[in-house]
Amino acid sequence: MSSEDCIWDDDTLHEECGIFGVYGAEAGDASALVALGLHALQHRGQEAAGIVAYDSDSAEFYQDRRIGLVRDTFTKQAAIDRLPGSLAIGHNRYSTAGGKGITALRDIQPIFAEFAPGGCAIAHNGNITNADALRKDLVNRGSIFQSSSDTECIVHLMARSIQKSLPERITDALRAVEGAFSIIAMTRTKMIGLRDPSGVRPLVLGKFGEAHVLSSETCALDIIGAEYVRDIEPGEMVIISDKGVVSTRPFEPKPSRFCVFEYVYFSRPDSQIDGRSVYETRRNIGIELARENKIDADVVVPVPDSGTPAAIGYSQESGIPFNFGVIRNQYTGRTFIEPTDHIRNLGVKLKLNVNRAVVEGKRVILVDDSIVRGTTSIKIMQMVRDAGAKEVHFRIASPPTAWPCYYGVDTPDREKLLASRMTEEEMRKHIGVDSLSFISLDGLYRACGEKSRNAAMPQYCDACFSGEYPLVPADAIARGELSLKAAE
Amino acid sequence: MSSEDCIWDDDTLHEECGIFGVYGAEAGDASALVALGLHALQHRGQEAAGIVAYDSDSAEFYQDRRIGLVRDTFTKQAAIDRLPGSLAIGHNRYSTAGGKGITALRDIQPIFAEFAPGGCAIAHNGNITNADALRKDLVNRGSIFQSSSDTECIVHLMARSIQKSLPERITDALRAVEGAFSIIAMTRTKMIGLRDPSGVRPLVLGKFGEAHVLSSETCALDIIGAEYVRDIEPGEMVIISDKGVVSTRPFEPKPSRFCVFEYVYFSRPDSQIDGRSVYETRRNIGIELARENKIDADVVVPVPDSGTPAAIGYSQESGIPFNFGVIRNQYTGRTFIEPTDHIRNLGVKLKLNVNRAVVEGKRVILVDDSIVRGTTSIKIMQMVRDAGAKEVHFRIASPPTAWPCYYGVDTPDREKLLASRMTEEEMRKHIGVDSLSFISLDGLYRACGEKSRNAAMPQYCDACFSGEYPLVPADAIARGELSLKAAE
Amino acid sequence: MSSEDCIWDDDTLHEECGIFGVYGAEAGDASALVALGLHALQHRGQEAAGIVAYDSDSAEFYQDRRIGLVRDTFTKQAAIDRLPGSLAIGHNRYSTAGGKGITALRDIQPIFAEFAPGGCAIAHNGNITNADALRKDLVNRGSIFQSSSDTECIVHLMARSIQKSLPERITDALRAVEGAFSIIAMTRTKMIGLRDPSGVRPLVLGKFGEAHVLSSETCALDIIGAEYVRDIEPGEMVIISDKGVVSTRPFEPKPSRFCVFEYVYFSRPDSQIDGRSVYETRRNIGIELARENKIDADVVVPVPDSGTPAAIGYSQESGIPFNFGVIRNQYTGRTFIEPTDHIRNLGVKLKLNVNRAVVEGKRVILVDDSIVRGTTSIKIMQMVRDAGAKEVHFRIASPPTAWPCYYGVDTPDREKLLASRMTEEEMRKHIGVDSLSFISLDGLYRACGEKSRNAAMPQYCDACFSGEYPLVPADAIARGELSLKAAE
Amino acid sequence: MSSEDCIWDDDTLHEECGIFGVYGAEAGDASALVALGLHALQHRGQEAAGIVAYDSDSAEFYQDRRIGLVRDTFTKQAAIDRLPGSLAIGHNRYSTAGGKGITALRDIQPIFAEFAPGGCAIAHNGNITNADALRKDLVNRGSIFQSSSDTECIVHLMARSIQKSLPERITDALRAVEGAFSIIAMTRTKMIGLRDPSGVRPLVLGKFGEAHVLSSETCALDIIGAEYVRDIEPGEMVIISDKGVVSTRPFEPKPSRFCVFEYVYFSRPDSQIDGRSVYETRRNIGIELARENKIDADVVVPVPDSGTPAAIGYSQESGIPFNFGVIRNQYTGRTFIEPTDHIRNLGVKLKLNVNRAVVEGKRVILVDDSIVRGTTSIKIMQMVRDAGAKEVHFRIASPPTAWPCYYGVDTPDREKLLASRMTEEEMRKHIGVDSLSFISLDGLYRACGEKSRNAAMPQYCDACFSGEYPLVPADAIARGELSLKAAE
Repeated sequence: MSSEDCIWDDDTLHEECGIFGVYGAEAGDASALVALGLHALQHRGQEAAGIVAYDSDSAEFYQDRRIGLVRDTFTKQAAIDRLPGSLAIGHNRYSTAGGKGITALRDIQPIFAEFAPGGCAIAHNGNITNADALRKDLVNRGSIFQSSSDTECIVHLMARSIQKSLPERITDALRAVEGAFSIIAMTRTKMIGLRDPSGVRPLVLGKFGEAHVLSSETCALDIIGAEYVRDIEPGEMVIISDKGVVSTRPFEPKPSRFCVFEYVYFSRPDSQIDGRSVYETRRNIGIELARENKIDADVVVPVPDSGTPAAIGYSQESGIPFNFGVIRNQYTGRTFIEPTDHIRNLGVKLKLNVNRAVVEGKRVILVDDSIVRGTTSIKIMQMVRDAGAKEVHFRIASPPTAWPCYYGVDTPDREKLLASRMTEEEMRKHIGVDSLSFISLDGLYRACGEKSRNAAMPQYCDACFSGEYPLVPADAIARGELSLKAAE
Repeated sequence: MSSEDCIWDDDTLHEECGIFGVYGAEAGDASALVALGLHALQHRGQEAAGIVAYDSDSAEFYQDRRIGLVRDTFTKQAAIDRLPGSLAIGHNRYSTAGGKGITALRDIQPIFAEFAPGGCAIAHNGNITNADALRKDLVNRGSIFQSSSDTECIVHLMARSIQKSLPERITDALRAVEGAFSIIAMTRTKMIGLRDPSGVRPLVLGKFGEAHVLSSETCALDIIGAEYVRDIEPGEMVIISDKGVVSTRPFEPKPSRFCVFEYVYFSRPDSQIDGRSVYETRRNIGIELARENKIDADVVVPVPDSGTPAAIGYSQESGIPFNFGVIRNQYTGRTFIEPTDHIRNLGVKLKLNVNRAVVEGKRVILVDDSIVRGTTSIKIMQMVRDAGAKEVHFRIASPPTAWPCYYGVDTPDREKLLASRMTEEEMRKHIGVDSLSFISLDGLYRACGEKSRNAAMPQYCDACFSGEYPLVPADAIARGELSLKAAE
Repeated sequence: MSSEDCIWDDDTLHEECGIFGVYGAEAGDASALVALGLHALQHRGQEAAGIVAYDSDSAEFYQDRRIGLVRDTFTKQAAIDRLPGSLAIGHNRYSTAGGKGITALRDIQPIFAEFAPGGCAIAHNGNITNADALRKDLVNRGSIFQSSSDTECIVHLMARSIQKSLPERITDALRAVEGAFSIIAMTRTKMIGLRDPSGVRPLVLGKFGEAHVLSSETCALDIIGAEYVRDIEPGEMVIISDKGVVSTRPFEPKPSRFCVFEYVYFSRPDSQIDGRSVYETRRNIGIELARENKIDADVVVPVPDSGTPAAIGYSQESGIPFNFGVIRNQYTGRTFIEPTDHIRNLGVKLKLNVNRAVVEGKRVILVDDSIVRGTTSIKIMQMVRDAGAKEVHFRIASPPTAWPCYYGVDTPDREKLLASRMTEEEMRKHIGVDSLSFISLDGLYRACGEKSRNAAMPQYCDACFSGEYPLVPADAIARGELSLKAAE
Repeated sequence: MSSEDCIWDDDTLHEECGIFGVYGAEAGDASALVALGLHALQHRGQEAAGIVAYDSDSAEFYQDRRIGLVRDTFTKQAAIDRLPGSLAIGHNRYSTAGGKGITALRDIQPIFAEFAPGGCAIAHNGNITNADALRKDLVNRGSIFQSSSDTECIVHLMARSIQKSLPERITDALRAVEGAFSIIAMTRTKMIGLRDPSGVRPLVLGKFGEAHVLSSETCALDIIGAEYVRDIEPGEMVIISDKGVVSTRPFEPKPSRFCVFEYVYFSRPDSQIDGRSVYETRRNIGIELARENKIDADVVVPVPDSGTPAAIGYSQESGIPFNFGVIRNQYTGRTFIEPTDHIRNLGVKLKLNVNRAVVEGKRVILVDDSIVRGTTSIKIMQMVRDAGAKEVHFRIASPPTAWPCYYGVDTPDREKLLASRMTEEEMRKHIGVDSLSFISLDGLYRACGEKSRNAAMPQYCDACFSGEYPLVPADAIARGELSLKAAE
């Protein structure tokens, strides 16, 4: 990959996982439906995907894990035919950490293990914040880890549980676990869905004819034509079997702290979270942004694709025309041309090109979803200036991202986050724009339908903006990566 | 591929080729630059690509042809390293016709042949309308065809030319050829660019430091940071060598008849054709469309991505808000999941999903670029209605497409074009929308900057709308596929 | 695979593993040397191979496992470059049992695991006869198995050991294990070689400049030009580190029971076991066979390649000329043409062809190494008869194979062994030869340099011929596959 | 490939092609039978293979060309299913000359071309000695060559023939061609087999039920169970159609000059040429060799596999015991491990290992088929000496190879042939053996059943030994590679 591409890719936050499961499909359809669901959730993890299916005819579990996009891996009849049955779950993964030898394949979820009561597969979206400590303890007791995945702690805890049933063993294991987790699990006869007590990551329940569906987002219900039933609640565990959907509350209750960045960037715009449209929320952010930061200009230009709904809202509120001044190459995925050093330094524009006719001689308001390292922002600003823009004003649809996430999002180290080491004015100068404004935390909460942020007990997890971590990131503190804000 | 996908893919016109060449790059860079150019022209041909390079050090031509997207084929250092030199040309291909055995690879351009005066490679965008007749004649005289490509006629004509120099042999060959052609050719010492006398397909000249560049569109100059010099003119042939760029006029002059559909759909919105912005022209079409077909509604929704600029223009002219009511899955390429029959019939939405929050309870104006078979239109209308739209009004950014193209575009047989067998009112009922309007031919010409269409001698080729073919499609007539409108 | 090929392949016994390791090679060479060693040991396992290397510069273990022959997998510079360091061990595997999903890859050794004291890799030749019971017990205690390999029991036992050092944990684990095992293991600083107290499987020590080498057979020392030092002794464990080679005796001593079939078939003819040439031993078998079963004939014909040395001995002893009357196709590996049913039934001869000139009109003595199911024997007899042989006499270089092996050899179920359900005369009629003789057990022992078989305490393991199992096959008895001869 | 391997591979002559065809098989079987035939002829060309089939149901030709061994390419049902029909021909190729870009694939035969009278495929074993001149002339007249294969001249000559029928066009073309050619061709309705008037390369006719078969050697009839009918005669052309087998004589008759090296090395030992067993002929060579060069020794050791039959003959004639003192690794194909430089220089023994027990302390007679460059001979001599042989005597089953072949065999340039620049005594010293003898030319002819070589008109082509070229190698003379012996 060229350094150019690295810059583009590094300069955004990545949700680390999408999960999807089907119980009770017509025989043979379950894994095809899961593949479709994973395709619709591809934005949540592009590096690899895995599917585990159980076929009651052969009384066997079948599993497959592949590096690459679902459209390139689980799209063939042959691949699906190797995953028979009416019960299947799947997982999209962002990063295949490590990657030496075959480690990478082993890190692809769902994790499958044979326990004394039988086989069980687990797909996990989130992050276990005390995984290092748990792992060390388990290894000392004789557990052998096969992957570098924090999720493997869960199955070793399950293996050591003295409970008889697998749902009870899952509960046992998760009581020892800290952090954020939305999980879909399966045994031979059950599909299980659960969210951690704070409900940091999403999980929804759907119905597809007689079959039950669990999915990270509603857009994956839409792709198969499944009906949305409801969001799984924070701290809730649903056990789906031939007795239907049974809801339990195995954990200590906690206040809900859903990740607000799911609205800002992670979720697909056509998804609904707890009945709230992601697209409309983003458009609202644009409206709030326009209200908070008025400026006279000729055109509102989104940084595609994530800045587009906010840019539309901004244009609608401000009355300044919306136009695509930056065009995205639709064929650019995650693999790129590796040109010679000479060419690399020319600054090729593999993903984005400026649309000169829209920006030349204009005062341009550029709307992007967030600033992480700031490297992309500089590139885009330069492209727009080179095309003859008279002024460039940068409007950001989130507050400054100043803190790493430890709940299942791939963020750079704190010192690489531009907002952690610069004031807004320093950032403006660094990027080289005529003005720079971020939406306020309260503005963001208003766009999400709240009156304002409840400082005493925020309605969402906004740790990446506020540094207020609702769940203690124990491993990160132990590694010295983080001292909690409270302690500063 | 599922039948569903076939429907989506069949229901659009496809440009058949993109071409790109570099002369005089730093040694080793030429093929990398061509790969980047082809990546930027990927929308003009997604099935396969080929590159031919000449390396003066080894005094050898090098060639590679690959099925798949440039990002998946010519993106590795190793692939580029096998194509050394400072002179290279490349070609993107839409369809790999035939495909039995290795025929398909042979059909990928550039075509390379050794002639008595030396090797020559040719990349062709367009279509030879008398290829069948030429081929039959050449085979009778002892030529052996290796591909099913019409372009191969050109090299056999060149092989039989008694001219000494390759540029003269190209001219000789093309004088026997009828049809539309923009061509980039290369010998060991020259790069040649030319357009047919009617100038149906585009070709532009650029400068990249000391190197010269030829490209189908300006967006491919942008990706490498090359400077736009000018469009090659209809009937012009430029010979680029160490003596610089020499322009000649080897053909009988004819009136210019540039393909108007390049503005409507084929070209990338960030390209400029003859100094005119494609994006702005499409936005103008939206403006004209709004002027011609006023209607009261709540929201203007584009069919992404091709309907978007016209929808923005429509919104800006009408004052009705623009919003993304239909969302495109950015991970969907040309390969799709092959679900079971059962699933296929559910109507999965692999490429597009409705954004319920935008359309529910609304009077929706849907803007698309064109209607070909109409199958996609019905699907989208249904998705929007299912999501609760109160009214659906369809506005089309081109006149009814009633005639096949024989100039390098993949169009269905005439009887499959909806507009060839239905009136507009019949089409409205067939698609099931509340109203349906197309821009008028004159409106389209106004959007392109003309006062109106010159009926006696139209400024563009608009045969797909008007049935007035500027170049006689001799093979099609011989095969009985077409009787000319004049003859009707 | 055609049923024809299955017949050929099924009708022989398969050694299940070859192992090879290098300690102290020049940096970067270790894995290349291991690849060469595994190539020389390919006959001991053709399905898959794995290599684990430790690189002290990066302080990391590197591993790779591949399905296929070493010549097709670990033969590229790139593959070897991914396995840096001066310490590496490898394993050839015969069968990849299971094979659903990625199970197969996980079954390829060496097994690697991270223990509390650090990483350790283990390559195992042999079979654990109480693996089922161990596995069940370990799962009940919370161990999670990742493979279907019996070897994985060893690492879980090691994980649960309270010993601090890895060599001690290996000893701990193997004390709980029953069966046959020659093992090469490695930690970051040591290479360990050991044989079970009965010494069923071979293991030799070599020297390659300053480096130490462990190998299943001496032929793999030869390929890299390493010097043979000595055989590891039954029950011996050598720990190779920067302190040199330290020999220990961690197990209860037992009488040596080396597998006599290693001489008959498994080992390569150019190997030496305990100073005894395999080729010469096989030639001796032919000599003994000729002495025991005199017959008048025109030509001695080996079934290539395994019957060749015995046939040479037979010819030399009997004075009847030796000639290749059956020719082996040297290009036939383990993958074969899949013809249509029609062709398959024709009886194609993919591996062997008769050499008509040698057998036509002749009285032929065919010499083969063993009879397992007898299906191959029938085929070869028929080929020879079809080519015009006047008489066909079958001489077998081993006693009747009537009992399965449970010590690391893939044998059919007992009822499929021809000798377990037929007398010699019945076998002769079944195969359709004019005479059939096997070497006697005593004759085999004489060929191995013994005066005769010590019935009270046989010098070798010959359970496949005698049914006298030196190590109790506990799992097989528990599964009901075997009742011990003693109990019959 | 390591330089070591290059030495082994370079140091032998390579037949360049094997050809096989089936007419009138049951529908669908033809290409499977051809694949089996090519597998049996793999020794005649290991680099690549191609099959062309004609299916009368679809009235289409199907073709596939693959690099690699038949067992790895044309062994899958899917590959065969893509080549339907009851008529198919195939070709094994030794070298894929050139290899830049996709040139290599284009060089794989059979060559297929569409002529005015229809499609025709041609598979050619041999070499056209005036190909350069023909090619130059054809290009000047407007033919476009697609490959670097001399065989392509034939199809361009056919394309220019004014004959109506394809068999007549083939005859027309071959009358302009000089050199050695055994050819199998096919049209939609016919299979054609022919040999040049001197009959340099073999071709046999077989019967497989109702189907007719053509093959380079009889061993490929055996593999499918086809019956041998007869050898095609020098200068004969058989046209096989629904009218049966029609024999014609389209060429001027010439004396037969079959390649004697086919007996020495190229053909498989289980083949019969003109009723004479290749194995027996080689054994006869060993007998003659023993008669011509008596020496006292302890053991006769073949260089496997090609020296084995002669060594058996030598042993039988001399009474000195035959034993395998050099063992061939059966898993070594043409791909080898690429070790580091350090390892490469150790002299790894990838293909052959000495069997110490056989040679230690012995006077060894080593028998090989031929000496080309001599590099292999030195290696083997050294291995045998290192293992403790007391004396090494080299006996060669062919006369000194002093002249290149221009009739379809890949030979080094003349100056690289050891025998072209050294006397026998110089060769003995160079290789370092105690004695060295070659069979005499007359001895070789006696082994082939002749009384002696007819110096005036030799019964075989033995140009590689004698320098007497029966067909003028015009291109080689024009390139200055050869001055004819007569002219010296």
